[in-house]
Amino acid sequence: MTHPHADSPSAARIVAATHHWPRGFRAAVGAAAIKKHGRDDLALLAMPEGATAAAIFTRNLFAAAPIELSRRHLKDSRGHASALILNSGCANAATGPRGLANAQEMVDAVSLALGCATESVFVNSTGVIGVQLPMERIAPVIPKMAAGIAEALDAGPLEPFARAIMTTDTKPKMSARRIELDGGRTVHVAGVAKGAGMIRPDMATMISVLATDAAVEPKALDRILRHAADASYHRISVDGDTSTNDSVFAFASGVAGACDEILLARAFRGVACELAKMIVCDGEGFERSLSVRVTGAATKADALKVAETVASSLLVRTAITGGDPNWGRIVAAAGRAGVAFRPGDLELRVGGILIFRDGEPCPAYEGSMKDAVRAAFNGAHVEVVISLGATEGAEAETNSDEFLSCGLTTEYVRLNADYTT
Amino acid sequence: MTHPHADSPSAARIVAATHHWPRGFRAAVGAAAIKKHGRDDLALLAMPEGATAAAIFTRNLFAAAPIELSRRHLKDSRGHASALILNSGCANAATGPRGLANAQEMVDAVSLALGCATESVFVNSTGVIGVQLPMERIAPVIPKMAAGIAEALDAGPLEPFARAIMTTDTKPKMSARRIELDGGRTVHVAGVAKGAGMIRPDMATMISVLATDAAVEPKALDRILRHAADASYHRISVDGDTSTNDSVFAFASGVAGACDEILLARAFRGVACELAKMIVCDGEGFERSLSVRVTGAATKADALKVAETVASSLLVRTAITGGDPNWGRIVAAAGRAGVAFRPGDLELRVGGILIFRDGEPCPAYEGSMKDAVRAAFNGAHVEVVISLGATEGAEAETNSDEFLSCGLTTEYVRLNADYTT
Repeated sequence: MTHPHADSPSAARIVAATHHWPRGFRAAVGAAAIKKHGRDDLALLAMPEGATAAAIFTRNLFAAAPIELSRRHLKDSRGHASALILNSGCANAATGPRGLANAQEMVDAVSLALGCATESVFVNSTGVIGVQLPMERIAPVIPKMAAGIAEALDAGPLEPFARAIMTTDTKPKMSARRIELDGGRTVHVAGVAKGAGMIRPDMATMISVLATDAAVEPKALDRILRHAADASYHRISVDGDTSTNDSVFAFASGVAGACDEILLARAFRGVACELAKMIVCDGEGFERSLSVRVTGAATKADALKVAETVASSLLVRTAITGGDPNWGRIVAAAGRAGVAFRPGDLELRVGGILIFRDGEPCPAYEGSMKDAVRAAFNGAHVEVVISLGATEGAEAETNSDEFLSCGLTTEYVRLNADYTT
Repeated sequence: MTHPHADSPSAARIVAATHHWPRGFRAAVGAAAIKKHGRDDLALLAMPEGATAAAIFTRNLFAAAPIELSRRHLKDSRGHASALILNSGCANAATGPRGLANAQEMVDAVSLALGCATESVFVNSTGVIGVQLPMERIAPVIPKMAAGIAEALDAGPLEPFARAIMTTDTKPKMSARRIELDGGRTVHVAGVAKGAGMIRPDMATMISVLATDAAVEPKALDRILRHAADASYHRISVDGDTSTNDSVFAFASGVAGACDEILLARAFRGVACELAKMIVCDGEGFERSLSVRVTGAATKADALKVAETVASSLLVRTAITGGDPNWGRIVAAAGRAGVAFRPGDLELRVGGILIFRDGEPCPAYEGSMKDAVRAAFNGAHVEVVISLGATEGAEAETNSDEFLSCGLTTEYVRLNADYTT
């Protein structure tokens, strides 16, 4: 058993690939007028017999009806999948028994139309909470999509699917990698995501679907998925809320045969990290991204806690929006993270410039460096590095972590003040 | 020893009073051009020999220099006070040894000018972090203020002091109570606060000064202060950040003689709660307040955790700003609070209207009640009541708590994006 974190010794390599599903996957989309504007709002993904599945679901107590059903199916099918159906425009969350019956009806319709076992069909919804799905409009579209699957290209483009699951996203989110194995064989990994509001780590974070044509056992696929999510979806924040519908699915069609787990994990992580960055940079009202790297903590968990606290602070995030070099807010946020360190040992760098050390601003900051610091706060990306000084050298590097966020903008507030109306 | 929570059996009563300091307190203000616009930015409060003190200070690791000094003085003086000096416009936080020396210089100047022991002088600052105090402008103003104290009225008006400590506050925050004791004797409690940004509980929350002319031992004053802060400053949130300078001071001049502790605690709580509400309703970009009451939790701590999570959720707070009846966000925030309850047992009321029960929206909500719910979301204050159903009857009432917050507005973001520049 190899560990996904270790480096691979082979000559195999991972390269960017065109935005297509891996082999064995066929997709179809449909419009059921769940969203306004008559856009596609249903997406169906079908995979061959023997395909495996893994998933991470929201920890919100009000997990949506489709999440409940998918969670059960993952268990009942022992990690095997035939299809996934998603809709946007309505979350089918906080909808009680009728919501559960509606999710079941979606699954049953797919199962019937594709001729596969009910428990191998996964489902999720995204959109407004507390509203019932318009089943009278959804039900007739599902058989049409299933017919579309029969005619669809194997390994067709990701984009229609990625577009159909968008809510307040401004663009579809897609990423793909090709693994070139020793001996000329190739394996593909591809993914789509929908993000925008309600993005937060420590949970499955939004809807993302990752797929590979490699043959992977359910347990290994689960390991690979969790490794990828830890490095990506669990390290970003747009608004600190956790949705009722957050989920990341991983499917493996097996068509391309076996693949070294290290390579596959690295490709999954690459796809997931690219999608996670896209989610932040398409956050509601996005103007400027912010990365907070913390090193030299007493533990790795401490590093993550400080990084997340700083990256999530409203005062820091509004300063980032304003391009305002109000770095004192960064230091203050670190100081309230609930992590023990000596304030006098903290060093703060923004855009590579040392601003704060020995408990006070660096002397140069008051002088000529002020313009450089202002420029560092005004780029498309603001890079914050905090050294806590609780550990040194290699240990300081080990006890480090990074969090990705973005400036909080007036447009974010405007969009979210009028979401349902 | 009586407990401050219990009811008093006497005929004494507590009534609102004019906005004046209690007897024994004299105040003076000054302008040292720390803030722009040449407004008053220094405030000095002097009290007679024997006055007692209590204080709650920020738990931020980067506690400002004046907080460090005041914390030490509270210990060294064993809870006795002669004076308090505050400045706005500069927080003197993250300013290293020079910041500490500057805070010491402010204290020394007051001690010298008023002829009192150094350790009986308290100090705090509020404003931008990471900038040194302009001591060359502050130093000459302190003796003038001390001279002003000598000429000042005993029990003069609160307003000049309350104005001098404002930063982004739009109005001064003042509250006062008179306790009419049996036999015609009276005792006064009065307070001022500065709030706006960086308001968060679980810490001393901002700068507030509470004063009484009752004679109170330091230990009792500390009890009374903590009781008042728990019910007020620890139950509000404007942006979830915790400042480097948060503090609540309580002083007792003793001039009016002894007072029953229950009555005094109740008056302090009344003043503190009124000031806390003013802070929320003068939060940066304030448009609409939000109270979240949670009952029927398994424990009182659970109730507070859910109330705070809902009241602090960005998605809930933007919906409140928009007057958007997107109540699903309230339910979703409760579900991610990290508190155990059965989702099917939760009941949600907004403005007294039952919206959600048995895991789904109430049938009436879809119909005629929709307009009433919209109205409830569009008032000056939005009242949310959540029953978790984990306990019932008297136990449900005991295991309850409330949190006060406000809508998150585009103006909040605008103000905070350009704070230092």
